Amino acid sequence: MRAALDAARAAAETAEVPVGAVVMQGDRVVAVAANAPRTLHDPTAHAEMLAIRAAAQALGRDRLEDCDLWVTLEPCAMCAGAIAHARIARVYYGAADPKGGAVEHGPRFFTQPTCHHRPEVYSGIGEGEAGELLREFFAARR
Amino acid sequence: MRAALDAARAAAETAEVPVGAVVMQGDRVVAVAANAPRTLHDPTAHAEMLAIRAAAQALGRDRLEDCDLWVTLEPCAMCAGAIAHARIARVYYGAADPKGGAVEHGPRFFTQPTCHHRPEVYSGIGEGEAGELLREFFAARR
Repeated sequence: MRAALDAARAAAETAEVPVGAVVMQGDRVVAVAANAPRTLHDPTAHAEMLAIRAAAQALGRDRLEDCDLWVTLEPCAMCAGAIAHARIARVYYGAADPKGGAVEHGPRFFTQPTCHHRPEVYSGIGEGEAGELLREFFAARR
Repeated sequence: MRAALDAARAAAETAEVPVGAVVMQGDRVVAVAANAPRTLHDPTAHAEMLAIRAAAQALGRDRLEDCDLWVTLEPCAMCAGAIAHARIARVYYGAADPKGGAVEHGPRFFTQPTCHHRPEVYSGIGEGEAGELLREFFAARR
């Protein structure tokens, strides 16, 4: 989660909402990414999406059954869907996102009958620092 | 929808589930894409995602408020989330997807309070041909 928080901080420095994500295969870091939709002109470029895509490229396959995802914020519906498609084994996330989250809020996607893979989910990891980064970012832009 | 169906047919020829998508800006085709997660080693590479990403690249921005998406199959949660993030104005889709769809099935994402943009949605367009492509594909693989 340290690497994910560092990526979140890097996102803030490019005026992107500070969210970072890491894909791990056991103890090995496969991919690290920062949220970058504006920078990349890509509405799908959330940290989780970029990390999952980079990990799949690095491993040369479209399923990551042996990988875990660490992310500083509760994934949205798009990212939760991607996590399920990628067959990620475990998801560890920091701050909850009542406005846009899709794991413990809104669609609670992993509980839906149309969700074909349910990762193990662990929340609240590093949430203090992850949430503080987000609060500072939005306060500075008001 | 004709171009989306042609893209779906092209996907089937590469052993991918036959789904195709097109992003239009008024009468102009901005991007066409075929479903390609296996080919690209990218679990996020659904037709809608590839078309949205290509359109955002082509237009040099991360929001597509003036664009419409045509897709041969009901979008999943990942793609519905991406459609909302991209601020797509209208979504036209072909076959319904009771097993994985997220518009009229499962999370019905566009009705969720955590969905921050609701496109106009028109379903059933070209559904006969879109559904037949999918049925032929899965029948041939059984």
